[in-house]
Amino acid sequence: MSLWDGQLAYRPDTPAVAGITIANRGTLAKLLLSPGYHFGEAYAAGRITVDGDLSRLCEVVYRSYPEFGMLNRFWRRMQSLGKSSLSAARRNIHHHYDLGNEFYRRWLDDNMLYTCAYFRDPGMTLEEAQIAKMDHVCRKVRLMPGQTVVEAGCGWGGLALYMARKYGVRVRAYNISREQIEYARERAEHEGLSNRVEFIHDDWRTITGQYDAFVSVGMLEHVGIGNFRRLGEVIHRSLRKQGLGLLHTIGRNAAAPLDPWIERQIFPGACPPSLRQMMDIFETRQYSVLDVENIRLHYAETLRHWLERFLDNLDLFRDELDERFIRTWRLYLEGSVASFAAGTLQLFQVVFSHPENNHIPWTRQSLYAAEYQPALLADAIATGTPRSS
Amino acid sequence: MSLWDGQLAYRPDTPAVAGITIANRGTLAKLLLSPGYHFGEAYAAGRITVDGDLSRLCEVVYRSYPEFGMLNRFWRRMQSLGKSSLSAARRNIHHHYDLGNEFYRRWLDDNMLYTCAYFRDPGMTLEEAQIAKMDHVCRKVRLMPGQTVVEAGCGWGGLALYMARKYGVRVRAYNISREQIEYARERAEHEGLSNRVEFIHDDWRTITGQYDAFVSVGMLEHVGIGNFRRLGEVIHRSLRKQGLGLLHTIGRNAAAPLDPWIERQIFPGACPPSLRQMMDIFETRQYSVLDVENIRLHYAETLRHWLERFLDNLDLFRDELDERFIRTWRLYLEGSVASFAAGTLQLFQVVFSHPENNHIPWTRQSLYAAEYQPALLADAIATGTPRSS
Repeated sequence: MSLWDGQLAYRPDTPAVAGITIANRGTLAKLLLSPGYHFGEAYAAGRITVDGDLSRLCEVVYRSYPEFGMLNRFWRRMQSLGKSSLSAARRNIHHHYDLGNEFYRRWLDDNMLYTCAYFRDPGMTLEEAQIAKMDHVCRKVRLMPGQTVVEAGCGWGGLALYMARKYGVRVRAYNISREQIEYARERAEHEGLSNRVEFIHDDWRTITGQYDAFVSVGMLEHVGIGNFRRLGEVIHRSLRKQGLGLLHTIGRNAAAPLDPWIERQIFPGACPPSLRQMMDIFETRQYSVLDVENIRLHYAETLRHWLERFLDNLDLFRDELDERFIRTWRLYLEGSVASFAAGTLQLFQVVFSHPENNHIPWTRQSLYAAEYQPALLADAIATGTPRSS
Repeated sequence: MSLWDGQLAYRPDTPAVAGITIANRGTLAKLLLSPGYHFGEAYAAGRITVDGDLSRLCEVVYRSYPEFGMLNRFWRRMQSLGKSSLSAARRNIHHHYDLGNEFYRRWLDDNMLYTCAYFRDPGMTLEEAQIAKMDHVCRKVRLMPGQTVVEAGCGWGGLALYMARKYGVRVRAYNISREQIEYARERAEHEGLSNRVEFIHDDWRTITGQYDAFVSVGMLEHVGIGNFRRLGEVIHRSLRKQGLGLLHTIGRNAAAPLDPWIERQIFPGACPPSLRQMMDIFETRQYSVLDVENIRLHYAETLRHWLERFLDNLDLFRDELDERFIRTWRLYLEGSVASFAAGTLQLFQVVFSHPENNHIPWTRQSLYAAEYQPALLADAIATGTPRSS
């Protein structure tokens, strides 16, 4: 680590993964006061520069100092546990998702999926892994042609359109980001799916109707722990008794707020829940948790792909965006790779159902079969009825 | 439903699944006062008789009245949430498991596994499904030859011996039931496995050493919620940082005590935990939950097999055991089929690891492959390290 005057302040015993240069005394002072917040601020402003592997540096720091960034924990708690009201939700989502579709298109996959991919086979491209993720989700809720699905938080519509196209279902998909919904509607029109996928510019609280599946991929982080019981009620009124639901979310091993800098600069109002916190969604109505899968290493891999594409586009970005914005996003992507690789963040997929639903998968075999055969599952279900006594 | 004088007290709208006869006025009074406890008492004493399908009757009751048996909830709470001390633990376990190996041998499988089986293929026999369960558990913790395993609560030793024989590992297995441990040691001797499987007549709290896997199948129900943090500490000190652990337990969708009659007559001190309650085990040390599978319908099926064998042996039992004992056990088995079929009880298998462990399975594919190939998994693990940035 180098200070502004070239002094070497600290040389750790472990082999160096990156060199850090701190531009001035004020930056160092702020860093010592509140490292979790000011490292991000100073990096974005160019007052801290890093020579070497930034992701790896973050990972080493996260592993050594899990409390990193926790100084700001208390004043922030109200906010992240808080009651994300409808209007606050709109403001927060606008901050992150209405940056401009063009910006995200440069480094996401063709389907514009801004959530963890599933690298079923290690050699997969990002495009393939995002399709594998969508198939994994569709298989987990056992989609069958003719069924209906509600999706809470649909992003640019990639999953909703895929479910309709590949699994023959009808989808109602909700999102409060106007730019994303407009993009999704155009795509539905273009693909001739407007009659089977309805994109609704509204909040999950306004979901109406009853469906065979309830799916939400990458929205729960923004819902706010204080709203989980309400989400449980929305699920209860909209999921048929014999249906299956799935929540896909960034999570924690134990309750903690998001890194304060990321929460402020990147995801206002976001809080990745622990499994304990998620139980608020299910316990009120005694819903059954059927399957939890933690695929955090897949998110580290997904983020590495995004980062690679992001860095490939740096010159283009520099023509359009200011340097501070670019450095902010770069740090967010590199730091996120580190968080998932170091195990400070998790990625949970949780499958659940009404407690009395016996039309649940007998085993998880069909998730891993070469061909998806939902029809075969129906036979196994029959075993759920008593045979003799 | 018939009363002692032949009056028909209640005729439900749904088609009858069984006829109930109540022998006298006192029985009815007690039943109304505390149905959850006195139904079992009166059935065991023959003061209530059931003509028809008892499991199905229980299932209908559980589905219609989930609060059935909850009147005794409060005075019992202290007990089931309670601090199951070492001496109380020994007393409780003795009550249930030292009934005599001969009794259990009559209706369990050849391996004497007294826990939920896994009917991987619907046509499996109980024997096959118990072997499939052991393989499922061994694959979930990715056993490899030469590794070491600690098992907390090993029953009659079936799983410990299987792991050593089929997966080439060394096992230390703990149990506080003397009869079970003696049986297990004899079997190890007989199979020539005494040098690789050590059966220890002691409590899980006394586990020493470090192991590649921590496995516990069907013990957690007896541990007591108040001891979960302590169990987490035992896991933390005995599971290697790159190891995997598995807990297999009866559970609940939300916290509730066990049926009061079953807790008193069958499993003193037992309490099936909710997932929220189980988080006490993992959260203190920030352990990662990697995989949760709920296979409750497999337990309904397992219990149907046990019940069938139990009923096949009724005449033999009548020579050796008193009628009240036989009726008690019959009701317990029939009621348990109903609880798992109705969804009032769950069966969770939870896989977990140290938070920084990146030697975790990349996907769950290997659980469902025709041949178990742990070697292949090692390649995928390499993906956990950053590739470029």
